[in-house]
Amino acid sequence: MSQPLAVLRQRLFTSVLSDCLDAAGHRDQAMQARIRPLDEALVLCGRARTALYMDVYDAPAGENPYELEIRLIDDLRTDEVAVFACGASGRIAPWGELLSTAARARGAAGVVMDGLTRDVRAIRDMKFPVFAGGIGPLDAKGRGKVMAVDVAVEVAGARVAPGDLVFGDADGVVVVPRAIEGQVIAAALAKVAGENATREALARGEKLAEVFRRHGIL
Amino acid sequence: MSQPLAVLRQRLFTSVLSDCLDAAGHRDQAMQARIRPLDEALVLCGRARTALYMDVYDAPAGENPYELEIRLIDDLRTDEVAVFACGASGRIAPWGELLSTAARARGAAGVVMDGLTRDVRAIRDMKFPVFAGGIGPLDAKGRGKVMAVDVAVEVAGARVAPGDLVFGDADGVVVVPRAIEGQVIAAALAKVAGENATREALARGEKLAEVFRRHGIL
Amino acid sequence: MSQPLAVLRQRLFTSVLSDCLDAAGHRDQAMQARIRPLDEALVLCGRARTALYMDVYDAPAGENPYELEIRLIDDLRTDEVAVFACGASGRIAPWGELLSTAARARGAAGVVMDGLTRDVRAIRDMKFPVFAGGIGPLDAKGRGKVMAVDVAVEVAGARVAPGDLVFGDADGVVVVPRAIEGQVIAAALAKVAGENATREALARGEKLAEVFRRHGIL
Amino acid sequence: MSQPLAVLRQRLFTSVLSDCLDAAGHRDQAMQARIRPLDEALVLCGRARTALYMDVYDAPAGENPYELEIRLIDDLRTDEVAVFACGASGRIAPWGELLSTAARARGAAGVVMDGLTRDVRAIRDMKFPVFAGGIGPLDAKGRGKVMAVDVAVEVAGARVAPGDLVFGDADGVVVVPRAIEGQVIAAALAKVAGENATREALARGEKLAEVFRRHGIL
Amino acid sequence: MSQPLAVLRQRLFTSVLSDCLDAAGHRDQAMQARIRPLDEALVLCGRARTALYMDVYDAPAGENPYELEIRLIDDLRTDEVAVFACGASGRIAPWGELLSTAARARGAAGVVMDGLTRDVRAIRDMKFPVFAGGIGPLDAKGRGKVMAVDVAVEVAGARVAPGDLVFGDADGVVVVPRAIEGQVIAAALAKVAGENATREALARGEKLAEVFRRHGIL
Amino acid sequence: MSQPLAVLRQRLFTSVLSDCLDAAGHRDQAMQARIRPLDEALVLCGRARTALYMDVYDAPAGENPYELEIRLIDDLRTDEVAVFACGASGRIAPWGELLSTAARARGAAGVVMDGLTRDVRAIRDMKFPVFAGGIGPLDAKGRGKVMAVDVAVEVAGARVAPGDLVFGDADGVVVVPRAIEGQVIAAALAKVAGENATREALARGEKLAEVFRRHGIL
Repeated sequence: MSQPLAVLRQRLFTSVLSDCLDAAGHRDQAMQARIRPLDEALVLCGRARTALYMDVYDAPAGENPYELEIRLIDDLRTDEVAVFACGASGRIAPWGELLSTAARARGAAGVVMDGLTRDVRAIRDMKFPVFAGGIGPLDAKGRGKVMAVDVAVEVAGARVAPGDLVFGDADGVVVVPRAIEGQVIAAALAKVAGENATREALARGEKLAEVFRRHGIL
Repeated sequence: MSQPLAVLRQRLFTSVLSDCLDAAGHRDQAMQARIRPLDEALVLCGRARTALYMDVYDAPAGENPYELEIRLIDDLRTDEVAVFACGASGRIAPWGELLSTAARARGAAGVVMDGLTRDVRAIRDMKFPVFAGGIGPLDAKGRGKVMAVDVAVEVAGARVAPGDLVFGDADGVVVVPRAIEGQVIAAALAKVAGENATREALARGEKLAEVFRRHGIL
Repeated sequence: MSQPLAVLRQRLFTSVLSDCLDAAGHRDQAMQARIRPLDEALVLCGRARTALYMDVYDAPAGENPYELEIRLIDDLRTDEVAVFACGASGRIAPWGELLSTAARARGAAGVVMDGLTRDVRAIRDMKFPVFAGGIGPLDAKGRGKVMAVDVAVEVAGARVAPGDLVFGDADGVVVVPRAIEGQVIAAALAKVAGENATREALARGEKLAEVFRRHGIL
Repeated sequence: MSQPLAVLRQRLFTSVLSDCLDAAGHRDQAMQARIRPLDEALVLCGRARTALYMDVYDAPAGENPYELEIRLIDDLRTDEVAVFACGASGRIAPWGELLSTAARARGAAGVVMDGLTRDVRAIRDMKFPVFAGGIGPLDAKGRGKVMAVDVAVEVAGARVAPGDLVFGDADGVVVVPRAIEGQVIAAALAKVAGENATREALARGEKLAEVFRRHGIL
Repeated sequence: MSQPLAVLRQRLFTSVLSDCLDAAGHRDQAMQARIRPLDEALVLCGRARTALYMDVYDAPAGENPYELEIRLIDDLRTDEVAVFACGASGRIAPWGELLSTAARARGAAGVVMDGLTRDVRAIRDMKFPVFAGGIGPLDAKGRGKVMAVDVAVEVAGARVAPGDLVFGDADGVVVVPRAIEGQVIAAALAKVAGENATREALARGEKLAEVFRRHGIL
Repeated sequence: MSQPLAVLRQRLFTSVLSDCLDAAGHRDQAMQARIRPLDEALVLCGRARTALYMDVYDAPAGENPYELEIRLIDDLRTDEVAVFACGASGRIAPWGELLSTAARARGAAGVVMDGLTRDVRAIRDMKFPVFAGGIGPLDAKGRGKVMAVDVAVEVAGARVAPGDLVFGDADGVVVVPRAIEGQVIAAALAKVAGENATREALARGEKLAEVFRRHGIL
């Protein structure tokens, strides 16, 4: 990938990347619609660092229930995205203001999880990109626990391998697998240009059939 | 209907229309709560032009997957509402910025769909009323295809026939069948007046039981 | 509880109360994430007045379908919270602008329900705290009816007894049972102080592992 | 209805009645597929006696939680069907061996409910027709309570008014509204005859297209 | 595939084929658990002939709603399996006794659908293998309609292309893609032999750890 | 508990134990209705040995994915019940004929899981009590993995601690916590006797109201 992440963050969109992933034959790369940004104005773009949660039903005394989670956060580097696979239970809010503060201090680009998040007003004030499966107060302690980091996971229907490019904006989140990253990004940058011409023609009142025939973009 | 649509758009509300549809014995006219406006400040009011989607699992080479969809959009007229019945899958985002641009150029009043929509920041900037079952990036190509237009459909639990009045605001979307349109609109305009008196009495601190006894409105 | 409710409203958060309820062994006190505030900037804090709904399929002529509901609203006192247990159907919107007006005139602190609410733009303008399971226009008449008030209920997974402290903000809603109220509030006020120190250390760039070791707060 | 119920029980089928209800324009008369017979060999045919449950969260001391339920069972007459609308919770098993014994002693034709049933091995031994939304042990006490009997209800998507004909077999349950009962039963008896001719032609190897053209039955 | 289908039907199992598909890296070939056989004693094994349904909300007068469905059934040949992709609605029962009779007369091996089936007692008497998403009486007319045959579809989470090998028994249904059929069948026949040795060792009381170390089969 | 398990297996029922657990104030001890026996004629009664699964998305080469599972099965003793908490995904079938063979060879009383089971015809032939959340072929390898044994878990809504009494029959599964086991069993044995008298009175045609007044049993 010859473009730095900051450039992609400015010029690309989730919907365009999704179309280019489709065209490349990778059709399951968008997370389900239940994953939403806390702040629709922020764009998330970075490389995945994954954590895999297990549902638990007890917090044994003397055990640090956050051990691997803390290790992952403390190990985040610039432009990395914490990706938490919390499973389908929807019981836990593993992310909040303190983890956002710690992750941002490391230079992380943001976080994506299929669990819930909390402290949402404080996180919005920080302008830190958080994409989650909902909002709720229940801490993970005694409910869920990270059992592995930097392994392949699935989050809301999309497979995420460590190092994959994760891109999120107001339209949702897509995952670009490493192997096709260069090709997909190049196609997406080209498509953005084509969409501008299409939009202008439609705004002038041209028929959609004619504009689609000419540009092939919808 | 002697009132022009622009007047209804200013003076009516989804909740009042819903009550009057109930009173007329039509009790299944509100779409389910999962259908939400992209912009809660916009009011949608117009006549339904329907499209019926089928889930597909392939996009055969050489086929235009958007053929009927494009035909419907290009045929929209002033004050018409595109109504897309996309089914229960929640996989596809058939609507976005380009279709919004094309539809507005034709004078359409807005769009309602039980699928997802994308390019939501751009659409909000356009102030074009879009009501959808969620937000997501996945294009319909190879996932869903319009098989019929201008037929009776069901969207999020409500039946919509071509030409029905579709009304949406921050409270959701209701469908007013053509046959009872005059009666329901007249009743709704009358109820709006009664609610003002009720609200004022309650704000003065009168007991609800007394105010309801007097006005019969809750 | 030696602190007046207004003080708690300013100094506490749903997430901190949830952690302290967990620590006290009460782990089912948070409502499910589908209960959301109409206005994320408002804080709800008050004592529960409960209403229990039954699904019905008819509105017999001559019957007042709102009888017990009206009685509860008219009986609300300062700092009380109307808690409506509407069940899992999601069909009805028992709350709207008129009930908000009446409840606020009595000094009520707000309302929580697992049903839908309507007239949401008007309610937001009133700055009255409403937490609901969604937004929709369908009135309760002929669909749901209050059959009991001031009884123990369950709302979105949390048990609420009359008089329980109900606290809601942008992160959701928790219920503090009367018997442990003093203990939980004291712990929560203490935890808020500890979180400030943790946040500052993390913002300075200290490692999470070290800060958690020192403060024990995440 | 000139045919006695025992004749209908022998000669009709749920699927044929469903087709004739469709043809009469009543298209929501079949209960959802989750309602299953305990014994697929038994046929249920009788007139509805309805009970409407409310979810409760307490069993107040000194209260008989089964009061209206008992009253309905003791009042059942020959060929009546107890229809229990238990709602969507799926928490309670209001029916079991003892109620089956009592209902059969009154001559009742069977029972339909969207709740669970229990004591299923004993009920199967009795050859008493029970159609339910599942099997489970949890008694209704403190979880659900009958609040009204002999009112219109909805069970698994189908409306049931007192006195409606309720018909169930291995294919599920349909409800025939009183007003169209004669017409629907006459059409169903006629259709059964036509299906025999169709089946024989198909079994001989005739093409479906030809047989359907001739008999119009599928 | 050198083995005739009748041999596979006798010697293979869904679970063994599923393991061998997993081992070949095809991990989404099993239909979801909601697809069940009407008769658990029957084995289904044949080549897919697919039909793709669309939800409809009207049956226009003069139109044959079964046209493509009839064409597919009349065109079935020996050892073919009708595969109906009916979508997620669960509203329709497109299969029954008459279609079973017609399909068997053509020599078809059975049918798989994610819709409902009806006339289940008669179908069981015929010993014709039917796998469905449930049991219910509602005919497809005016609810669903075949829009394409012999195209790639998805049924209960598994992709089915025309000509794929479809195998079903009491454990469910798996789909073996044409391209890997020979390899998967060879591996499955070999695995069946290994399981016999494992089973005998375990029945003699050997420890699972030791037997698994020796045979590598679980 | 002075009664041996074999006596309880003969004399008790899930429904009676559920009522006595309710009466003792333990109201969440029944598993949800989706947990069903493979063979409704078998009774399960024994002490829980638990296994906790985590969803995984890879099977790393060289790793034994069944390690803890095998260890638990090999360690089972007479009258123990393997209890597998597989989570809400419904993707995996961790139980089959081989594990049944191994567990029975150790004298285990049976197994309960919220996942799926496979090889169901062979298991039924063995008359080994298996209660599961469904039937399906997908092996756990690369999909789910046991991460802990002999810890407290939740299965289908019921908490199970190691050593708890697990009782299952055609009506479902209940869990009797160790601390109240003696009291609940004594009450259940007494209630069984009372139900016989009630049943006989009802079969003679006595009114339910009178019999319930006399015996207090429903």
